[in-house]
Amino acid sequence: MTTGAEALVQTLADCGVAACFANPGTSEMHLVTALDREPRIRSVLCLFEGVATGAADGYARIAGKPAMTLLHLGSGLTNAGANLHNARRARSPMVNVIGDHATYHLEYDAPLTSDIEALAKPNAIWTGRVEKASVGGERAAQAWLASQRNGGGPVALLLPADSAWDGGGLTAASATPDRWSAPDAGKVEAVAKRLKAAKKPCILINGTATIGDGLVAAGRLEAAGVKVFTDTFVWRQERGAGRYAPQRLGYFGEMALAELDGCDLMVLAGTQKPAAFFAYPGKPSLLIPEGCDAVDLATAVEDAGAALALLADAIGAPAAGPVSVRQVYPAPSGALSPADVGASLTRHMPAGSIIADDGVTAGLPIFTLTAGAEQHDWLFLTGGAIGIGMPLALGAAVAAPERKVICLSGDGAGMYTNQALWTMAREKLDVLTIVFANRSYRILNIEMARTGAGNPGPTASSMLSLDNPPIDWVKLAEAQGVTAARCERAEDFDTICARMLAMKGPTLIEAVC
Amino acid sequence: MTTGAEALVQTLADCGVAACFANPGTSEMHLVTALDREPRIRSVLCLFEGVATGAADGYARIAGKPAMTLLHLGSGLTNAGANLHNARRARSPMVNVIGDHATYHLEYDAPLTSDIEALAKPNAIWTGRVEKASVGGERAAQAWLASQRNGGGPVALLLPADSAWDGGGLTAASATPDRWSAPDAGKVEAVAKRLKAAKKPCILINGTATIGDGLVAAGRLEAAGVKVFTDTFVWRQERGAGRYAPQRLGYFGEMALAELDGCDLMVLAGTQKPAAFFAYPGKPSLLIPEGCDAVDLATAVEDAGAALALLADAIGAPAAGPVSVRQVYPAPSGALSPADVGASLTRHMPAGSIIADDGVTAGLPIFTLTAGAEQHDWLFLTGGAIGIGMPLALGAAVAAPERKVICLSGDGAGMYTNQALWTMAREKLDVLTIVFANRSYRILNIEMARTGAGNPGPTASSMLSLDNPPIDWVKLAEAQGVTAARCERAEDFDTICARMLAMKGPTLIEAVC
Repeated sequence: MTTGAEALVQTLADCGVAACFANPGTSEMHLVTALDREPRIRSVLCLFEGVATGAADGYARIAGKPAMTLLHLGSGLTNAGANLHNARRARSPMVNVIGDHATYHLEYDAPLTSDIEALAKPNAIWTGRVEKASVGGERAAQAWLASQRNGGGPVALLLPADSAWDGGGLTAASATPDRWSAPDAGKVEAVAKRLKAAKKPCILINGTATIGDGLVAAGRLEAAGVKVFTDTFVWRQERGAGRYAPQRLGYFGEMALAELDGCDLMVLAGTQKPAAFFAYPGKPSLLIPEGCDAVDLATAVEDAGAALALLADAIGAPAAGPVSVRQVYPAPSGALSPADVGASLTRHMPAGSIIADDGVTAGLPIFTLTAGAEQHDWLFLTGGAIGIGMPLALGAAVAAPERKVICLSGDGAGMYTNQALWTMAREKLDVLTIVFANRSYRILNIEMARTGAGNPGPTASSMLSLDNPPIDWVKLAEAQGVTAARCERAEDFDTICARMLAMKGPTLIEAVC
Repeated sequence: MTTGAEALVQTLADCGVAACFANPGTSEMHLVTALDREPRIRSVLCLFEGVATGAADGYARIAGKPAMTLLHLGSGLTNAGANLHNARRARSPMVNVIGDHATYHLEYDAPLTSDIEALAKPNAIWTGRVEKASVGGERAAQAWLASQRNGGGPVALLLPADSAWDGGGLTAASATPDRWSAPDAGKVEAVAKRLKAAKKPCILINGTATIGDGLVAAGRLEAAGVKVFTDTFVWRQERGAGRYAPQRLGYFGEMALAELDGCDLMVLAGTQKPAAFFAYPGKPSLLIPEGCDAVDLATAVEDAGAALALLADAIGAPAAGPVSVRQVYPAPSGALSPADVGASLTRHMPAGSIIADDGVTAGLPIFTLTAGAEQHDWLFLTGGAIGIGMPLALGAAVAAPERKVICLSGDGAGMYTNQALWTMAREKLDVLTIVFANRSYRILNIEMARTGAGNPGPTASSMLSLDNPPIDWVKLAEAQGVTAARCERAEDFDTICARMLAMKGPTLIEAVC
């Protein structure tokens, strides 16, 4: 007898799913035993559902395919929600399997009953339900497909307990779809014409244009005199020595507009018109200078990288663009700063590293300094919901066990999902987490002034401060089985960072700066 | 100039709101400064939004009125969601103020944009939006009212950033509504008739029937020969020596049905027909024995306690019912068990304590043993979403600073919202948290067998286990500024529990059992 749960799990494994980030409950027990019988899927227990979805996001960005998550009813799904929002913005494919009460049990409105579909829809690009055991495989295959269409994204598949435990489950087969649409030759031709006519054109990239051949093509366009920017927050960017380093559009609107000043044409490749992260009184929301036309080369659901390659050919761009040169900064010293962390990473970070960036104010100087580090991938906070760093790193490490993963996290951001440390320890994942212990929501101290909300009095100041009591990240990590150290001096950080990067397994540095 | 945010905050303070559990972001900076200028509201920073809503729930259950929460956009709201689900099930009034992007900014689909209304609706009994600054007060007054109607519950009030910062804000006044409808005399009369004719009647209570005069009336009915049960999970129950202790309906369906065996009439007072927490293959969902009629005396939106008093009069019940006698257990010894924790609480827990129970498998023996403890309030996990204990305790302690609060938490449950410990330390709240470190989702080991999901293999067993690595709760608490100790022996627990209960301020015991 094959249960509905077994058909679902086996179908996903047949499709190619190799990891499941899970936080199960009673209604998912048959799913748990189905996973027990499926050696092709690595089951990873997470102590909070936001860890599970953040991990599936990091997994998808590195593995290029969806992981499964296992979430307990509507409450598990809502706990998972902020990182589902981020994943939707990153267009990360993932198959979220959400248990539901048995179909016949719903009418009794038991305590955990909720409207799971309604909760799922805002952050899912597809939702489905296993109405009965026999469609377990079919729905799983549909979910697999749906998560990888239109650029990709999270899908929600509801599995009622009786559909899970009933027999008669049937598996289904599915091919892997094309995740992005092919470039539109007409748009390429039209943009090529506009580029030739423009005085100061620029291109804004994301999607497949920030990795592989797409990034190479972007460099060729830069060499042809087109200024290339990335979105401020990109799903994944290949970086380091020997790779093209496009300029990152500034976070604050006035910075972005200054960078774009004088541009008369903005080509959008794998993204949409740039907008300020937040609105501010009297400041523009749309970050396109006056007199600049925005034209669409490829939307986020199209293969922007391939479109850039066609465009580079169409305008006769050089065969190769500029690339970063290897740059090793001297050993830093003095009171530790985020820039010192960046300098140390150029010195010690091994080739092939993955950086999961939830560093908030600390992230930018490190990003800037590591342009000439060994080759690495940078994963960004795409949706602005802090608390993604450690989960993202966790998932990336499961996707690429042979690569070193470095998590940059603010202290405020890290507290949201600190439970990820436990899973890192349990799974012995090769992640170095660097927590920037500035003991405040520092970004909000900046934003308080920028929004013109007035000088903060004692209550307002206190609402942005994390210094009373200071959080002891060394103890917090050790409590969850992760080796940790605190650094206040740059020279200490440089030594300890080098040592931890040379170790295998999870480590954490509380960087007091 | 009064901003929309100021009008909103001032109106809520005028209504009687005295606490705000907050996790702000950029879009809420004007709300933060408005709170800065409002001394009548105590602003309490939470490092995760689920802590804020769990705290507002605990606050409402003890203070009997709503607190405000301040949540950052859709992502903050989803993080808050599981404890909003619990609060909805507890019918706890709370005014959740959720920041949104400025109205004119939404069209640009900035990274944090989401459909906040859609995310809010499943767990809100009312939603509203401050469309412009001038209605800030009016909407706040509406939210205050709506949260306390029909028994009460969480409401969601969206505050766009421009409505917050624009001038022209107008305050509004509001009375406090009747939270429950008056009892229905017709139903009382009909139920009285049915009771007289029944052979073995029982009453199932919740709502206002588990505190104050309602509980006294329930005791009178017991004295008149009507077996009284509470729902398995009640929003709040007054307990201890000198108070009536109705029987708690068993958690597992077969236990509940055995307890109800032979009943021919079930009167529902402040609740609905009892259902099994989960469905199990081949087992009933509805927990009403065959041949037993369920009749409605008062729904959850009616004043069930008042209805019970009328019913007791109508059937000529004695003027007083049975009450618990003070019972002090001897000092426990040996390897620590949850029952030993219960015994120690009967010895040391001061009168007026509040217990926030997220103890999962450990909670029941302690509940049973403390029937004869000093008088106290017990707050239950109403919605089944674990991770409520510490937030609930936090909010109760803000509502009643003169009372000792005791949090019972599973280790799995506690990890969801462990950030609550930091806020307890920051606010110097008088909470003793007892974490049951059984290093597993123990309830799921029981449920695995009950659902017939089969014998767990290594993967399944591992998915229910928290022992690798064991979580060091002493370090986790100390990392967040909370004094902590670990106990493995009952005699040590008894000593340390006595000492910590005599202290003021937050403490934690890791109870290894």
